[in-house]
Amino acid sequence: MSLNTFGHLFRVTTWGESHGPAIGCTVDGCPPGIPLTEADIQPWLDKRKPGQNKFTTQRKEPDEVRILSGVFEGRTTGTAIQLMIENTDQRSKDYGDIAQAFRPGHADITYHQKYGHRDYRGGGRSSARETAARVAAGGVARATLAALVPGLTITGYMVQMGARGIDRSRVDLASIGNNPFWCPDPVAATDWADYLDQLRLSHNSVGAVIEVIATGVPAGLGAPLYGKLDSDLASAMMSINAVKAVEIGDGMAAAALTGVENADEIRMGPNGPEFLSNRAGGILGGISTGQPVVCRFAVKPTSSILTPRQTINQRGEEIDLITKGRHDPCVGIRAVPVGEAMMACILLDHLMLDRAQTGSQRGTIG
Amino acid sequence: MSLNTFGHLFRVTTWGESHGPAIGCTVDGCPPGIPLTEADIQPWLDKRKPGQNKFTTQRKEPDEVRILSGVFEGRTTGTAIQLMIENTDQRSKDYGDIAQAFRPGHADITYHQKYGHRDYRGGGRSSARETAARVAAGGVARATLAALVPGLTITGYMVQMGARGIDRSRVDLASIGNNPFWCPDPVAATDWADYLDQLRLSHNSVGAVIEVIATGVPAGLGAPLYGKLDSDLASAMMSINAVKAVEIGDGMAAAALTGVENADEIRMGPNGPEFLSNRAGGILGGISTGQPVVCRFAVKPTSSILTPRQTINQRGEEIDLITKGRHDPCVGIRAVPVGEAMMACILLDHLMLDRAQTGSQRGTIG
Amino acid sequence: MSLNTFGHLFRVTTWGESHGPAIGCTVDGCPPGIPLTEADIQPWLDKRKPGQNKFTTQRKEPDEVRILSGVFEGRTTGTAIQLMIENTDQRSKDYGDIAQAFRPGHADITYHQKYGHRDYRGGGRSSARETAARVAAGGVARATLAALVPGLTITGYMVQMGARGIDRSRVDLASIGNNPFWCPDPVAATDWADYLDQLRLSHNSVGAVIEVIATGVPAGLGAPLYGKLDSDLASAMMSINAVKAVEIGDGMAAAALTGVENADEIRMGPNGPEFLSNRAGGILGGISTGQPVVCRFAVKPTSSILTPRQTINQRGEEIDLITKGRHDPCVGIRAVPVGEAMMACILLDHLMLDRAQTGSQRGTIG
Amino acid sequence: MSLNTFGHLFRVTTWGESHGPAIGCTVDGCPPGIPLTEADIQPWLDKRKPGQNKFTTQRKEPDEVRILSGVFEGRTTGTAIQLMIENTDQRSKDYGDIAQAFRPGHADITYHQKYGHRDYRGGGRSSARETAARVAAGGVARATLAALVPGLTITGYMVQMGARGIDRSRVDLASIGNNPFWCPDPVAATDWADYLDQLRLSHNSVGAVIEVIATGVPAGLGAPLYGKLDSDLASAMMSINAVKAVEIGDGMAAAALTGVENADEIRMGPNGPEFLSNRAGGILGGISTGQPVVCRFAVKPTSSILTPRQTINQRGEEIDLITKGRHDPCVGIRAVPVGEAMMACILLDHLMLDRAQTGSQRGTIG
Repeated sequence: MSLNTFGHLFRVTTWGESHGPAIGCTVDGCPPGIPLTEADIQPWLDKRKPGQNKFTTQRKEPDEVRILSGVFEGRTTGTAIQLMIENTDQRSKDYGDIAQAFRPGHADITYHQKYGHRDYRGGGRSSARETAARVAAGGVARATLAALVPGLTITGYMVQMGARGIDRSRVDLASIGNNPFWCPDPVAATDWADYLDQLRLSHNSVGAVIEVIATGVPAGLGAPLYGKLDSDLASAMMSINAVKAVEIGDGMAAAALTGVENADEIRMGPNGPEFLSNRAGGILGGISTGQPVVCRFAVKPTSSILTPRQTINQRGEEIDLITKGRHDPCVGIRAVPVGEAMMACILLDHLMLDRAQTGSQRGTIG
Repeated sequence: MSLNTFGHLFRVTTWGESHGPAIGCTVDGCPPGIPLTEADIQPWLDKRKPGQNKFTTQRKEPDEVRILSGVFEGRTTGTAIQLMIENTDQRSKDYGDIAQAFRPGHADITYHQKYGHRDYRGGGRSSARETAARVAAGGVARATLAALVPGLTITGYMVQMGARGIDRSRVDLASIGNNPFWCPDPVAATDWADYLDQLRLSHNSVGAVIEVIATGVPAGLGAPLYGKLDSDLASAMMSINAVKAVEIGDGMAAAALTGVENADEIRMGPNGPEFLSNRAGGILGGISTGQPVVCRFAVKPTSSILTPRQTINQRGEEIDLITKGRHDPCVGIRAVPVGEAMMACILLDHLMLDRAQTGSQRGTIG
Repeated sequence: MSLNTFGHLFRVTTWGESHGPAIGCTVDGCPPGIPLTEADIQPWLDKRKPGQNKFTTQRKEPDEVRILSGVFEGRTTGTAIQLMIENTDQRSKDYGDIAQAFRPGHADITYHQKYGHRDYRGGGRSSARETAARVAAGGVARATLAALVPGLTITGYMVQMGARGIDRSRVDLASIGNNPFWCPDPVAATDWADYLDQLRLSHNSVGAVIEVIATGVPAGLGAPLYGKLDSDLASAMMSINAVKAVEIGDGMAAAALTGVENADEIRMGPNGPEFLSNRAGGILGGISTGQPVVCRFAVKPTSSILTPRQTINQRGEEIDLITKGRHDPCVGIRAVPVGEAMMACILLDHLMLDRAQTGSQRGTIG
Repeated sequence: MSLNTFGHLFRVTTWGESHGPAIGCTVDGCPPGIPLTEADIQPWLDKRKPGQNKFTTQRKEPDEVRILSGVFEGRTTGTAIQLMIENTDQRSKDYGDIAQAFRPGHADITYHQKYGHRDYRGGGRSSARETAARVAAGGVARATLAALVPGLTITGYMVQMGARGIDRSRVDLASIGNNPFWCPDPVAATDWADYLDQLRLSHNSVGAVIEVIATGVPAGLGAPLYGKLDSDLASAMMSINAVKAVEIGDGMAAAALTGVENADEIRMGPNGPEFLSNRAGGILGGISTGQPVVCRFAVKPTSSILTPRQTINQRGEEIDLITKGRHDPCVGIRAVPVGEAMMACILLDHLMLDRAQTGSQRGTIG
């Protein structure tokens, strides 16, 4: 079974292969009356677009999105929104070598084993190219959130490249657009540039950790017990290509804490409850607290490298394989806007779930 | 909106509060003809049962499960299986203090903000008591997997308590039942016993990391792109009370690797492909490879502690709160059988999804 | 696959067999803060209860419902509501004869073919006894609708028994409780009593048509295109045991009309649009118009009769079979409260879907 | 909320408006390895295509389908299949008149009330043009069924136009392609041609009843209790534009029968059970019996007519409205291939559900 849809009420169904004629998605359930044009979506696609510098794949795709349905006279109609992005720069010849071979670390072998028949060109459906459709859907979610929850912000950035982290004391979110890594620590960014250059030239690649933070999220979002906000974020982020771990708030580090340390103590502020810390990452019992929602995920190093690796082919022969083609030395870079898009979709989905059940009712404090 | 169901085809719907008359679940979609009695489920509940030693809550619950439907003459009928566990040892008086106060680190405040009206006794629906229903459902999943995939095993154990890890060179899975922590490293287990005793006596608690491993999983399970096996495991584990992070294979550590290091190289063994390493944790592109599926999750320290913490109450007054009641100093201990149960349910669900789409077809190698 | 859940957001999962220890359901997604006790649900179960007169099965079941979760201090908490009804008057010995035989018109043969292993006692899961759980869920939906949409009414009644219809000019909805058939035409009710007595004594049974009407339904409910209000009503009513057809508004008769006749013309009334007729049954394009929602369904005659019918048994032997046991001569009678319950659940579900997407926005007229 | 997806495992998501640039659908969950090209789908679209004779709308659409994803080298890959049909002959100027007016019998008023903002051109999303996408999806389902269940057939035809039925003794399914109505009774077809000509010239329209029959359906398909085969067919057929009723087997007429008459008696044939009649329409307890599955639905007369009808506009003014544009005098004609497509999708979906749960197990007889 393949399941190409996510979301409970704000539902996104993606389609398309890396080297097919186009990719895209259907965004279903979007509230009506939301101002929306291609220009609201395109900037996010541009942020993810390949070929922008030497640290991302040299495939050149304009990634121009077209809205084919669900929008009339510049506003959403509440019906299914179809978004399409044509593929223009496919170089399938790069992939003749791997039609029968399984690249280590790739889904080639599992798609073959599961489906028997697969589009091997550029990874076909398992290619990270699919994430362009997510980013387009995220653009719709962002535009809708902007209309429904003024002041909500979503920001993604890289906090670790390989083993090299950032210095949290130097973080300046305003600076993340100033370097090719969406890195909030300018010193780390310079270091990473040298490091990645070196790796690239030595035919290697490296992993990364991305953090996505949402502020202005109303308290009360999350659908316990099996549609918890953190549970849905975990699923969403883990579904991104190459992601191997997801953390909320302190994440893995929470295991090392004692209960005394871990308690986010609560005081009463002028506008309601205020937490003295945010180890929980803005979520308690699967429901948002009103604090910033903090989510991190680890991206493994790009599997497609020019260093030969041992593998087998479909006939069961043992071979050594170099993966040619145009690949990102650190695929985590382009995962930043994808993580933001998933955050936007999940938050909007939960906003809708919440108003379905509780309407405008809310427990009050004070 | 609350969503109390998980699974695509093997669907589990749980219900019940910590201090209500009973808790339970409906297991829907189970294949027919599977041998099943209460005796197949009870051992897993016994493993999770509170009050077994000084390291878990002193609440005494027999946790006896009753099958109310879906089984006839000792075999499943393919219809909805209802499992019920009566609550017998509720001491609601412990909770009078917190009817109006929000315990730090607990869902009290978010349930109040979301729903306005909540069962505060023992955390009500947000209590970890709910996980007994998951373990019961996991028992059904295990019995079904035993019938459908002979040789498949699922084993959970604790690999870290607080900041204290295990020594992987000493791991002996056969020993995990010999200590109260399901710890596979006997030396660490002894150390942890002292450490936890100390913490408990100092009115503190601590976090943990649990690992669940499944062997004998057929290649080809997983539903890309939004029902990937790792994505569904992430959601399932993150939905367990107090979990803050989920890792597959190398998890967060994958970020620090290079592509050369990370590649699980493939050779041809007598029975098909063999991988020289398993950094991927048995999953590529969201689909199982046939290697062991490895999943880890971090459990934060128990929030209910006898050390006073600052918080507020429903009237907005700032107070200091001690959480009485009978609490686990390391709730991660009892998360072990819960993690196993979630793994069992997710694997069975994907087995069913897979046979729906591909039947017995499979891509062959060699 | 068995799917024991219905509803998009107000989700009902039923479980239980005719001769098991109990039946029940989980009602998930109910808004919080709704006043609810067993006393709100019991009257609807009493309406459906068997053994109330000679025209329904003589099985005596008190059908007392217990709320096991999701309600605290008399109000819903927004978490899963578990409702349980114990079975007390099972006479399984009646069913020894049919353990191996397939009663014509029953699901015995299809359950056997699909599942291989079935609870044959009283039809097991395929018994109309399951509808008690639906009626209990309907009680929760009615209580919720009463709180959210004051003035909304739902009324079911029988409009045809066998070939004998009612005279629409004599309809008095206030009289439907005055006869055992929930018949709104007192003259027809008297006629039906004689007719059914005769049929019963001649070891025969008969079909019926039920109509369910909802007034005070807000305009705008319905989720085009595959969760249309009529589409969901069709599915809901067709899922009731023995139902063979569902009509909305003019139903099958609409086929015989011309476009000129069929147009429900619209005028402007003091409170908004007014329709001069309601051939559409209150639904256009799958969305409610604000007119009464009118749904009818046909119930086939009870298949369990004392007249011998030709059939086969599991060994493939041809036999003649008399179905003993305690059966309704016109099972349509007890389908009336079931149809009402399904209507209540579907309307509430769509109310929630609608507020998820559109909140309080609405297109205005005038 | 709008829900543009149907199906449990074989999932179809449609998108597009009557006068937008294109319409289409994503077909998700299709088994891999199925031979599929545009040529397998196009004939079904041609069957539904407008403008083929004077009895259908004169809008000229080539309705050429393109496969954009999910198929590689002529076979399905098991990933999402995207089908797109460009709109080429939109004459939106016809619709200027109705931008602010609500056509009686149309969804104009309900879309306005629900969504506030709508694409009024040709009915936008509520147009029957959407059914082209269903027919395309049905083509994929048919190709898949042909590969998985050899011998299964699906045939739709019109059995009533207005009040004029067919003579069942004259039915010849081989003749349904010989007349523009897909009528299996050649005598009725001639009569209908005259009748419809007359109606068309008098600016009127008329309803119809369509029957869809599937033979060669294996016993055991259907997911009780809320995914019964008949329940899902009812939902699917009721979701088609202008449908007001759905019948299975004897349908509404079953209400008029006695239990003795209604029993489909069973004998033992050379290949298993044989039923002496098929009043049940091939479904018992929501599960297929192996007999032909028989489903009928009533289509109301086309609401768009040239005869003036009373209505209101958005400002609440009472007006008389003539609906210009190019409309079918009997929209039921083009509903025939749509009904077939829905049947194909639902049967395949249930085939997949069934193999998920029961695999190849089956209860045997004899």
